[in-house]
Amino acid sequence: MLRQPLLIRNRTLSTNSLAIVGAKVSHIESLDYEINENDLFKQDWRSRSKVEVLQYVFLKWLLAFLVGLLTGLIATLINLAVENIAGYKLLAVVKYIEQKRYITGFIYMAGANFFLTLVAAVLCVCFAPTAAGPGIPEIKAYLNGVDTPNMFGATTLIVKIVGSIGAVSAGLDLGKEGPLVHIGSCIASLLGQGGPDNYRIRWRWLRYFNNDRDRRDLITCGSSSGVCAAFRSPVGGVLFSLEEVATWWRSALLWRTFFSTAVVVVVLRAFMEYCKSGNCGLFGKGGLIMFDVSGVSVRYHVVDIFPIVAIGVIGGILGSLYNYLLHKVLKVYNVINEKGKLHKLLLSLSVSIFTSICMYGLPFLAECRPCDPSLQDVSCPTTGRAGNFKQFNCPKGYYNDLATLLLTTNDDAVRNIFSLNTSKEFCIFSLIIFFALYCVLGLVTFGIAVPSGLFLPIILMGSAYGRLLGIAMGPYTNIDQGLYAVLGAASLMAGSMRMTVSLCVIFLELTNNLLLLPITMLVLLIAKTVGDCFNPSIYDIILELKGLPFLDAHPEPWMRNITVGELADVKPAVVTLSGIEKVARIVEVLKNTTHNGFPVVDVVVPPMGSPNGATELHGLVLRAHLILVLKKKWFLRERRRTEEWEVREKFTSIDLAERGVKIEEVTVTKDEMEMYVDLHPLTNTTPYTVVESISVAKAMVLFRQVGLRHMIILPKYQAAGVYPVVGILTRQDLRAHNILSAFPQLAKFKGSKKGQ
Amino acid sequence: MLRQPLLIRNRTLSTNSLAIVGAKVSHIESLDYEINENDLFKQDWRSRSKVEVLQYVFLKWLLAFLVGLLTGLIATLINLAVENIAGYKLLAVVKYIEQKRYITGFIYMAGANFFLTLVAAVLCVCFAPTAAGPGIPEIKAYLNGVDTPNMFGATTLIVKIVGSIGAVSAGLDLGKEGPLVHIGSCIASLLGQGGPDNYRIRWRWLRYFNNDRDRRDLITCGSSSGVCAAFRSPVGGVLFSLEEVATWWRSALLWRTFFSTAVVVVVLRAFMEYCKSGNCGLFGKGGLIMFDVSGVSVRYHVVDIFPIVAIGVIGGILGSLYNYLLHKVLKVYNVINEKGKLHKLLLSLSVSIFTSICMYGLPFLAECRPCDPSLQDVSCPTTGRAGNFKQFNCPKGYYNDLATLLLTTNDDAVRNIFSLNTSKEFCIFSLIIFFALYCVLGLVTFGIAVPSGLFLPIILMGSAYGRLLGIAMGPYTNIDQGLYAVLGAASLMAGSMRMTVSLCVIFLELTNNLLLLPITMLVLLIAKTVGDCFNPSIYDIILELKGLPFLDAHPEPWMRNITVGELADVKPAVVTLSGIEKVARIVEVLKNTTHNGFPVVDVVVPPMGSPNGATELHGLVLRAHLILVLKKKWFLRERRRTEEWEVREKFTSIDLAERGVKIEEVTVTKDEMEMYVDLHPLTNTTPYTVVESISVAKAMVLFRQVGLRHMIILPKYQAAGVYPVVGILTRQDLRAHNILSAFPQLAKFKGSKKGQ
Repeated sequence: MLRQPLLIRNRTLSTNSLAIVGAKVSHIESLDYEINENDLFKQDWRSRSKVEVLQYVFLKWLLAFLVGLLTGLIATLINLAVENIAGYKLLAVVKYIEQKRYITGFIYMAGANFFLTLVAAVLCVCFAPTAAGPGIPEIKAYLNGVDTPNMFGATTLIVKIVGSIGAVSAGLDLGKEGPLVHIGSCIASLLGQGGPDNYRIRWRWLRYFNNDRDRRDLITCGSSSGVCAAFRSPVGGVLFSLEEVATWWRSALLWRTFFSTAVVVVVLRAFMEYCKSGNCGLFGKGGLIMFDVSGVSVRYHVVDIFPIVAIGVIGGILGSLYNYLLHKVLKVYNVINEKGKLHKLLLSLSVSIFTSICMYGLPFLAECRPCDPSLQDVSCPTTGRAGNFKQFNCPKGYYNDLATLLLTTNDDAVRNIFSLNTSKEFCIFSLIIFFALYCVLGLVTFGIAVPSGLFLPIILMGSAYGRLLGIAMGPYTNIDQGLYAVLGAASLMAGSMRMTVSLCVIFLELTNNLLLLPITMLVLLIAKTVGDCFNPSIYDIILELKGLPFLDAHPEPWMRNITVGELADVKPAVVTLSGIEKVARIVEVLKNTTHNGFPVVDVVVPPMGSPNGATELHGLVLRAHLILVLKKKWFLRERRRTEEWEVREKFTSIDLAERGVKIEEVTVTKDEMEMYVDLHPLTNTTPYTVVESISVAKAMVLFRQVGLRHMIILPKYQAAGVYPVVGILTRQDLRAHNILSAFPQLAKFKGSKKGQ
Repeated sequence: MLRQPLLIRNRTLSTNSLAIVGAKVSHIESLDYEINENDLFKQDWRSRSKVEVLQYVFLKWLLAFLVGLLTGLIATLINLAVENIAGYKLLAVVKYIEQKRYITGFIYMAGANFFLTLVAAVLCVCFAPTAAGPGIPEIKAYLNGVDTPNMFGATTLIVKIVGSIGAVSAGLDLGKEGPLVHIGSCIASLLGQGGPDNYRIRWRWLRYFNNDRDRRDLITCGSSSGVCAAFRSPVGGVLFSLEEVATWWRSALLWRTFFSTAVVVVVLRAFMEYCKSGNCGLFGKGGLIMFDVSGVSVRYHVVDIFPIVAIGVIGGILGSLYNYLLHKVLKVYNVINEKGKLHKLLLSLSVSIFTSICMYGLPFLAECRPCDPSLQDVSCPTTGRAGNFKQFNCPKGYYNDLATLLLTTNDDAVRNIFSLNTSKEFCIFSLIIFFALYCVLGLVTFGIAVPSGLFLPIILMGSAYGRLLGIAMGPYTNIDQGLYAVLGAASLMAGSMRMTVSLCVIFLELTNNLLLLPITMLVLLIAKTVGDCFNPSIYDIILELKGLPFLDAHPEPWMRNITVGELADVKPAVVTLSGIEKVARIVEVLKNTTHNGFPVVDVVVPPMGSPNGATELHGLVLRAHLILVLKKKWFLRERRRTEEWEVREKFTSIDLAERGVKIEEVTVTKDEMEMYVDLHPLTNTTPYTVVESISVAKAMVLFRQVGLRHMIILPKYQAAGVYPVVGILTRQDLRAHNILSAFPQLAKFKGSKKGQ
């Protein structure tokens, strides 16, 4: 049986499910990571002088240095601001409590929190909606090739910094860790483009970074620096980017990223050294170290394997449960937030008030516990800000263990619950309240319109049940309760975020103790495995919720059963241009479509007397370059090809890198409409192509591995009458969800992805 | 100007430079990392039941566990054997020296070393030549897609283990670190295939791992486990694989590799715990920890930046110098080694004798130094095996500092030179002799026919100049001399091996002190940068020397100026098969070519009265599958296509995974020669293709990123008379060196690779 040629295609020109899904998120643009090899590019710097290459290399490292430096400085600033604002707030509250003026104390605290939340929320709502949330999912999408608008601007950066200070100082259940990652990425992006959009430095050297590829590398550096700044964990930062954030990676980038994080660490260390002498107001001596057990000799034996496995399993179950519930809550929040700015604000403020009430009110439920006589007068009870035994409403010599955990900053709460050799400090009742409270707060706080990180809420939740388990295991284990808390936090993070190596290294660098490594590993692996049985990681869930077309690393197995030709058949016909095209046609095409790339097809002089009008694919031209042609009025009166010098006179590679001009902004006169444009010099002559018979699975591997934006489909059957382009595939076409909605019959093959 | 069609190709059928270079290394096969999507594959387990997927996942993790367990156990065994053999040898020598019987002592030591080297060398020379050297370059090549024969067999494994024990115990200047990486990989490979080649376990589940992709993943796990076992550094092991060894990487693999290294660490820890009670003979309490400074508080200030930068620069210069000289030495050694087995043996034995003479003789040059009174009777002088102050030929109360470094195992030497708070122990003269000696030994030892690692020689060399610099900086610095030695070792490793993140983490885990991290980072970055100015890393040099066709991550810039069509033009014409092919033709093709893949071209019923005989590309069939067809005599009497059930009856996916059958082993009768084979069900219908106009740079990115073995070139011009395949590219065709020898004019664009 010989196959029938695929000449007659059943094209559905109307919009269909594939196109509709794509349309819904059309404001999100894909990025051009592929090198656009057109004639102009070939005279670009990359193929030019050694001096320019050295400039590029020097600048690359300088930018990596600056990213690290600025991220470190801003992290310092945020830490200073938070510790001081929250510190003075708590000091005042403690003073009111000492005077038994409980109501005044509450009003003061709730008011301050309300005001701080208001500042953060107003900034986010009015000036930079993209600054809300952690920003990590969007960065992950960016590095996968999806550009969310206004994600890395100067406004976003400033709002993120100020908003983060406000939100964290307001005592909300959120961390500065996620926002720091976003801040690092913003800094990297802004440095790469020479400043904010409207006030860019037009330094000639910076032109090297005016492309998506180098920007991607910079943002990877930025996100690593952010994680490093958040946890003071240079290797962990690099690994976090590698494991969770980045889609493409290479050794050279590993090295540069590492350099950035090394700079961050040096900055943070210098700052801590400086603050040791008390120059930083209330910034405590604990500083950035959450939990230092380097001095402790950890001992554990074979019997300890059982509680460790238990923590891992519980972490996996709770983590996936948290993901599930947070998904539901975020869906509800989305409905509220879409109603308008006022609704967003009110939601944030109600969460703030609820948090204040719980933080202030719940400690009254706890009993006053007597201080250990050996500690008395030294560290128990404390009435100041930091400290492990808060007096709160108790008489002298007594402390309130719940107040120790609640009436403090989140960082101090972590430090307190992680503290070692304090096995009798917290009673079970207080820990249960603490855990329950943070479960509720962790769910309701994340979706509000302020910059918020997920790390800290999860650490707090996890440490609570870890410590509870530690108390329960008390007589049967050698491991300190503080370590149980650490392991609990690690397990919940792995259960929710599904990272392993990077989390392990972050915890290693946080705890500064290598002996913890094997048990941390075990807990993380178990928690991730258990979590993966139920649902995807929290970041994947948020990506899905935001509708970002993230391309997974592995094709689904059923994608082997469909070819790209079949996919192209259900798409609208591909819009192609001729090598030498009429201006009117170009304008028409640009106005009537939203495509970003158009295949260029040439008519070829037929050989050996075969029928006339044979065509061949010349390449792919980008929308941005077409608009540039129209804007520069680079028209020809007759249908001819241009010489190379003509092109060189008209365009520079700097022009080509320009973006964001819209077709509506270009005016073309009626006379000009009749003229021609030679697209050959602008055409990327070597686009990646696939034959229509290739399976979608393989096409997707190619698309993602090479980092494409457009993939041209060639016909399989070779004959004179066949049009040389069957279709064009973009990111949206390759998403499993979109393919399934066009080919529902494929769904029956679903459900065995794990084997890949 | 419309382009002329490329119909008439100027084919050079004779062998040319491209083919010749390829031929030289023709015994090295590429690997099939691409999924072979033929009809049979589609009924393979991957698209089948959930149970089978679960079996696969379970086995994947079980194998990762076993790889870790066995690597850990074998590392333990090697450590035990080395410490005991070398220990008893040294004890006896010390006894002779105590009795002033210096000549007898020397004869004893040289004799023992000679015998141990002999064992190692004879094993390597006669049974497994691939076991000589570190094996890391070959593993790196394997993971890049190049299969070196006999690299991962059972014989290689055993010879590597025994040879490594022998060579290290013989006191040669080499380490067990590199061999451990190879051992880990061998274990992984053997486990994956179910045992040694001749005694495989035919467990059904193992069929899942009978393909190059899963084997690649296993070997990645194995190499990580090896590094982890060598340095007791789980995160470092994973990062080493990631940064230096692996070509393809994904998050899922990160996780599994991490699991393996975690198992290794647990095994090593259990073993050390067991040996603490003295059950392991002379295996000392130092055990596997080379250098533990976790208890020391490291302090450094801004002024210390200068010596640190100096160490980095010196490390970079010395490292690249070492690479340069080692390259020369290896070239000379290659000439000697190629002369025959006896030459190989003699070379190894002369190095052994030379080493013995130096180790024993040089300490006599050093002066006896008085022990510090505070240490006397406690640890100075020591006469046993381990210990920091060797008495050697000195009177009571005195010690010989050079003997401390030389008359000991390499591990102990590292521990001694790294030792802290011993600023007066070593005099400059001794350190200079030590440094010079190890420079010479490091160069002459590496190329001999025993299993040898590069890590330890470099650490020894580096620590010597580090400590020298520490003495020179004495009054101006706060850093201990032991730390200088550590930094020196790190800098030389970075200068020679050009790794950064993984080395940093390995040193972090070796030294167990996070405060060292920023300065280690700085040293490593500087050393690598300086080294990169001069030559490639030592592994790249060895890869080049061995003629392994390693594909770099980045295409050279001049590759943008040549298309794959031009490349195909200088290659012999591509050999294609028809969809339904005569047996005689298949036999002829298989006998007369060495190609491993053949494009399958179908004749298509022409549409709309165009000239008859149009063809289209059906896909690619592998040599292994063709041989299988001949072996199974799956012939048809008439020219027809087969039904699906016929195919399923004949073949299973287990058959398809079979390898290594040669065409010469298959006999086909004369009658059968006239029959037909339907290649359609065996053909990979979705091979990756490129159009002939694509640049080599882009083709190479595709080739490497997707992990191809064959890349089919399609014609650009679409017409009925055009043959649907222009050529086929393999790894050899895309190597820069081969392209340049066919297109010497491209060389002028060379020399600006760094900008990429």
